[in-house]
Amino acid sequence: MQGNKLEFSEGFLFTDLYQLTMAQLYWRTGICNKRAQFDYFFRSYPDYGSHKAGFCIAAGLGSIIEWMQKARCGEKEIKNLKQVKSRSGRRLFEDNFLNWLKENGNFEGINIRAVKEGRVVHPVEPVAVIEGELAVAQILESPFLNIMNYQTLVATKAARVKEAGGSNPVLEFGLRRAQGKGANQGTRAALIGGADFSSNTAISFELGFPPKGTHAHSMVQAFMALGADELAAFTEYANLYPDDCLLLVDTIDTLESGIPNAIKVFEKLKSTGHKPVGIRLDSGDLAYLSIKAAKMLNDAGFGDTMIVLSNQLDEMVIWQILSQIKRDAESYGVDPDDVINRLAYGVGTSLITSRGASALDGVYKLSAVKDGGNWSPAMKVSQTPSKMTNPGFKKLWRIYDERGKASADMIALSDENPETEYELKLHHPIESGKHRTVKKSQIKKIEPLLADIVKNGSVCGEIESIDKIRETRQKDMEMLDTGVKRPVNPHIYHISLSRKLWKLKQQMLEENEQ
Amino acid sequence: MQGNKLEFSEGFLFTDLYQLTMAQLYWRTGICNKRAQFDYFFRSYPDYGSHKAGFCIAAGLGSIIEWMQKARCGEKEIKNLKQVKSRSGRRLFEDNFLNWLKENGNFEGINIRAVKEGRVVHPVEPVAVIEGELAVAQILESPFLNIMNYQTLVATKAARVKEAGGSNPVLEFGLRRAQGKGANQGTRAALIGGADFSSNTAISFELGFPPKGTHAHSMVQAFMALGADELAAFTEYANLYPDDCLLLVDTIDTLESGIPNAIKVFEKLKSTGHKPVGIRLDSGDLAYLSIKAAKMLNDAGFGDTMIVLSNQLDEMVIWQILSQIKRDAESYGVDPDDVINRLAYGVGTSLITSRGASALDGVYKLSAVKDGGNWSPAMKVSQTPSKMTNPGFKKLWRIYDERGKASADMIALSDENPETEYELKLHHPIESGKHRTVKKSQIKKIEPLLADIVKNGSVCGEIESIDKIRETRQKDMEMLDTGVKRPVNPHIYHISLSRKLWKLKQQMLEENEQ
Repeated sequence: MQGNKLEFSEGFLFTDLYQLTMAQLYWRTGICNKRAQFDYFFRSYPDYGSHKAGFCIAAGLGSIIEWMQKARCGEKEIKNLKQVKSRSGRRLFEDNFLNWLKENGNFEGINIRAVKEGRVVHPVEPVAVIEGELAVAQILESPFLNIMNYQTLVATKAARVKEAGGSNPVLEFGLRRAQGKGANQGTRAALIGGADFSSNTAISFELGFPPKGTHAHSMVQAFMALGADELAAFTEYANLYPDDCLLLVDTIDTLESGIPNAIKVFEKLKSTGHKPVGIRLDSGDLAYLSIKAAKMLNDAGFGDTMIVLSNQLDEMVIWQILSQIKRDAESYGVDPDDVINRLAYGVGTSLITSRGASALDGVYKLSAVKDGGNWSPAMKVSQTPSKMTNPGFKKLWRIYDERGKASADMIALSDENPETEYELKLHHPIESGKHRTVKKSQIKKIEPLLADIVKNGSVCGEIESIDKIRETRQKDMEMLDTGVKRPVNPHIYHISLSRKLWKLKQQMLEENEQ
Repeated sequence: MQGNKLEFSEGFLFTDLYQLTMAQLYWRTGICNKRAQFDYFFRSYPDYGSHKAGFCIAAGLGSIIEWMQKARCGEKEIKNLKQVKSRSGRRLFEDNFLNWLKENGNFEGINIRAVKEGRVVHPVEPVAVIEGELAVAQILESPFLNIMNYQTLVATKAARVKEAGGSNPVLEFGLRRAQGKGANQGTRAALIGGADFSSNTAISFELGFPPKGTHAHSMVQAFMALGADELAAFTEYANLYPDDCLLLVDTIDTLESGIPNAIKVFEKLKSTGHKPVGIRLDSGDLAYLSIKAAKMLNDAGFGDTMIVLSNQLDEMVIWQILSQIKRDAESYGVDPDDVINRLAYGVGTSLITSRGASALDGVYKLSAVKDGGNWSPAMKVSQTPSKMTNPGFKKLWRIYDERGKASADMIALSDENPETEYELKLHHPIESGKHRTVKKSQIKKIEPLLADIVKNGSVCGEIESIDKIRETRQKDMEMLDTGVKRPVNPHIYHISLSRKLWKLKQQMLEENEQ
């Protein structure tokens, strides 16, 4: 994702105004340079209404790092901030602060420890810990949340769609219904989470994936408006793309017109030594039509052509289509596997906008401030227990059971080392009495999840390629229990606090009540 | 929204690959330069699950025009397209086509007739008619849909929120949960639709709106982590911003800590001649807390301070909060109007992502192709009647009843002039027998809704300012019946076809069946 300088509207001031008013306060009170830690975490899995995720896939880190490296408080930013008025009519930001901001308005002092992109993550746990000077780390909050929340949301949805579709290809088709320019970040996240290709041309090039696509109804319509017909349109398409001939068959009537015409064209292609690719179905009962299409194509000797499905697909629709094919195909004289194995899924709106759960509730909360050499824990108390944060400088561990499956994540304080403990006491993050003990003998591996990703604004090692991140996701998905991956009513994965962190939290709550 | 050159990923190839494979086909078959018309319309109002819109607000045109003026098929685009491979291993796009595309890959030949931004629009009707050379107008489809769908979606949501909130200010706070960079276009649309200000700093500057905001929980937490307390944080904030002091009071405990501390700070401000602005509530029962807060502030002599509400607000939540205040305030010894009149609404996720309806189902469908000097109508037939398009070169009219209220929109063919008709026959766009006759005496005004916006790639007249568009929206909203604006189960606005268009559609359907 190389590019020019950031546009003004996507640069340093792609943030909420209050980050800047708070930064000025930190500057004014002399605490702006104190080192602070903020945790990025989300509170709950995406809930799509009738179903809910049981895991998420971390995504967005590469994009936020890229942004941080380009975003600077320059002349134009300062000039605009000078225009902001107080209700008194005077300027809201004073010159000395703006001078400080011009010098310090960059992310060269930021460190990030984070769970790598593509990994499975869960609510409450710190997916990233951002450390930097208080004022600058505060300004970073809004862009950080913007990028991480959306990409994690879409990567999660893509992983669910990919799970539902088995080993068949998933094509990301959402550009036209995406929420504006977010489309490109959505495509990136979809590829991380499970989509194999995208129709979005430019971003596919940038990410090193060949863009994919066929044709639309308008092609057939254009030929018809000019006095020709569907068969003529298909024929011309096949002449131009003899080895890439995938025909959309529902412009007029799928079974009566589209498929018969496609078969005519395929026969001609075959006779000239080309292999037709297949058809796309974009309306009607996709399960029924897939079976009928497979039958018609088989009978015509095209048993190896693809059937691409599109039209409001998501993980639930795909699941239902596959169930129906399994149940019904034989009654139409087709082997269900013969239908299913040739399917590909074109997934649009539901994936790129995460329909049903259009936002991840990720937050960026102060967890510690360095005061006189020591990290002093910070906590948000709340009347809603689920809104309380976990204080202090923390680490995150994943515990694998005897089978090697991920069985729990544990949030601990940074000076704890669960690898050396004889047994682990895992506390429920909110419910007071709820805890369990895991013996060392029940644990195959304990893995630290937070890695140093950014030191002083620079990436530690390389920014990972999307291909590499996809491998990470695949491996992590294999470590998850099937129950946790279930599309509906998933089994609950254990997220827990170490005994020491739990005690610190209780102690801070008590101090607050005094 | 001035800017540099477009980034590659947001430039000419911010489109679906199939637009380009179709363009090559049109070029190869010699029809790429034929003039074509595409209608942009949406099929249904946003449905938020438990409630549904009864109108939409058109938005996005200014942004798509700006994009069209910058997007060009340049060297980098060509270079990348040369890399696209056929399954045969050969190139998918041939040199002669790419040469043609390099010459013609711009939008200088495009005309757009459209409903102006900020106007009320409804399903089925052409919100925009795009006319251009077939291949180029086809490539424009994806970016056009991307921009118009999202902005119309958010402008609509904003108009609903604004309706629910009455004359009180609506603040757009959604950057952190927005779908990536779409945030900026979402802010633009929110301002068009009804938000008064946004916290998103850079885009507010670009659009000429002062960005707004207060402070976050982290400010109080930072002071606490450094050994101070909420009162100290509030005091420092008031010292720095004596005339803009709006305090977030729920970091610890709203009624026990936040409001009492805010009042202490307000008293000090008052004693030094400053007027405190107010408080923000971000958790708990916002209706109950608004009443209690108003009471406490009144009792302390701060009856004129604002109460800003935030936390998952949308039109339904606002409506409920207002109902509860109206019912309950007096029992706490407060006049309900005294609470309600001082409210402001900070609306985040639900607005910027249009929660519950994350996409508008807008489409871009071929309606006519110019063949030998005449416009030949095109139509998409479908087994699903609601997916059939309306053929031909069309105009759109709005009919105002005796009261001057908008009572129906009529889609007609371009050579019809309903202004000269004695009576109008309005046909339901889908249901065959359903039509009604409106006499001239029942009509106060008939207004053409499509205006020439772009001619040969250039804007006719000026691009309207957001302020101007907001006025348009306000005026149009006043012309709508209250029932249509109802947030739940709105009255159905009449969208109809003229008799002549209805007949053309039937005729084309019959021809298709033969």
